Amino acid sequence: VFGTENEFVRWVRARANIPARGVRLGIGDDAALVRVAAGNDLVLTTDLSIEGVHFSLVLHPARSVGHRAMARSISDVAAMGGIPRFALVSLAISRGSTRAWINGVYAGMLALAGRFGVRVIGGDTTFYSGVTMVDVMVAGEVERGRALVRSGARPGDRIYVSGRLGLSAQGLGLLKSPGRHWDRHTRAAIDAHLYPEPRCPLGRFLSKKRLASAVIDLSDGLSTDLGRLAEASHVGARLWSHRIPSLSVEEITQRAVSKGHNLALHGGEDYELLFTVSPRNAARIPAQYRGVPLHAIGEIRRSKELLLVDERGKSRSLKPAGYDHFRTR
Amino acid sequence: VFGTENEFVRWVRARANIPARGVRLGIGDDAALVRVAAGNDLVLTTDLSIEGVHFSLVLHPARSVGHRAMARSISDVAAMGGIPRFALVSLAISRGSTRAWINGVYAGMLALAGRFGVRVIGGDTTFYSGVTMVDVMVAGEVERGRALVRSGARPGDRIYVSGRLGLSAQGLGLLKSPGRHWDRHTRAAIDAHLYPEPRCPLGRFLSKKRLASAVIDLSDGLSTDLGRLAEASHVGARLWSHRIPSLSVEEITQRAVSKGHNLALHGGEDYELLFTVSPRNAARIPAQYRGVPLHAIGEIRRSKELLLVDERGKSRSLKPAGYDHFRTR
Repeated sequence: VFGTENEFVRWVRARANIPARGVRLGIGDDAALVRVAAGNDLVLTTDLSIEGVHFSLVLHPARSVGHRAMARSISDVAAMGGIPRFALVSLAISRGSTRAWINGVYAGMLALAGRFGVRVIGGDTTFYSGVTMVDVMVAGEVERGRALVRSGARPGDRIYVSGRLGLSAQGLGLLKSPGRHWDRHTRAAIDAHLYPEPRCPLGRFLSKKRLASAVIDLSDGLSTDLGRLAEASHVGARLWSHRIPSLSVEEITQRAVSKGHNLALHGGEDYELLFTVSPRNAARIPAQYRGVPLHAIGEIRRSKELLLVDERGKSRSLKPAGYDHFRTR
Repeated sequence: VFGTENEFVRWVRARANIPARGVRLGIGDDAALVRVAAGNDLVLTTDLSIEGVHFSLVLHPARSVGHRAMARSISDVAAMGGIPRFALVSLAISRGSTRAWINGVYAGMLALAGRFGVRVIGGDTTFYSGVTMVDVMVAGEVERGRALVRSGARPGDRIYVSGRLGLSAQGLGLLKSPGRHWDRHTRAAIDAHLYPEPRCPLGRFLSKKRLASAVIDLSDGLSTDLGRLAEASHVGARLWSHRIPSLSVEEITQRAVSKGHNLALHGGEDYELLFTVSPRNAARIPAQYRGVPLHAIGEIRRSKELLLVDERGKSRSLKPAGYDHFRTR
């Protein structure tokens, strides 16, 4: 595919190494050299995307593989209220890969990165006999004291979520069983799965206005990620099941409603933000921010359990049943 | 091995998440939050270590796998003259791995990191059916304008190298064909291979005293990495073959001398520093720095070719023949 490592580095450099603010030295030296604003903290995160685990060569186009790998890390920075700035991309590429496929993966990564002002400044690449793997490290910055963490939720805080939940999981289901009715909604679900949108503007809004007491991005499903937020904050939570924005009734059949409900609770990879807001600040949360709806879906409680309450006030225990590589695969 | 991802994160956190200078938030949130000194640039690098490519379960003990993975990235920061500070570790772990093995890998990583003041502040982990892979991202810092790059070598500059070359490749050879005479030298070679020492103190010395015009770390072999430095600087180089510090004659047989010479030219993973020094500064380079010998082995020339000159003044072309994943595997 590529003759030498030097040739590959030149290939990537030609695509990614655009001079940019803060980049002193990009791809091509022993390390990259960058600069963040004085007084800002540095936000560092990394996420693995593995063929057969996080993506499939059959279901995901190359551009989507790159987009999703980059989106996972950018979403982590969004959940900290930070501005994503730089990326390092490590690729272990299966020998079977074509240059067109690798090109597509990079195109997907670079398109999303470019839209969020993120520069790919380095990485490491190896061709080998195993499955393809992408590890994207993103470095961002956030004003000191303004980072949004998981651990600040307090009893009485309202729980909010952006967007609609379960859409990505539904899109994945549609990709797995094609040939179904193809309409505006199914297209939206598939698009949500293949090209998720990190909620950076919302994260920045919550950070700048100091509105959220705790934030996490929904990568592994509401039930799992709410559990993580609650554990980090040493609290419990009660969700109002009928307030959770899932697939709308007009779009799907009654039988699918309960399935849609399950996807909303446990489906992963929505990359929406889940955040808590003190009662005092709740009035300052708009119904939507830059076109993304925000819904109050529950409240934080002192008692360390997760409960799901229905319209009639009946409550049941909510067990984490979202995506967990350690359990489900 | 581990029941859930949350359990694994707790396990790593217990080992790695020690409060440290500059770490605002370590493992356990959406991203890590760190701080570098005002006025310093940020050095970012990442290196993949793949089972069957960069390490072998048969030849490398678990501690060595972790040590080498961490050493590769720390060495990149050393080659920039930076202080390594923080690490993110991504692990794709083969399902066949035992907890003891994973423990050993982490122990090796954390021991080396600890010795260099590097804190592991995050990462991503997946268990899957493929081979084990470790991606270590290291963030460091360096005073503005003091980073050591590859591109500053000028015609007339002297070429220096730290340590002895080819030792790691020889150690690997010994590990592959055991049962040979076991003495102080073979032990040193094996140790150099299993537990390489990043040259951070030397990198800092060259940066602080502004002694080097260009620096690269020798990860892929002298012939390959000198080629990279020369290309980045738009120059050529002439090496004096008899000045290259390789295996000493007392230690090996005459037949092994020519083999040792080849290892010194093309053997990878020595992680010594190769650097160039202007004629004006050459007198300020000591014979050794903190116990590590420094040798002048050649000079930079305008003509863009790499030459090897022997004791009798006979010169031949030096072709890059070091480690390159793209060519040799």
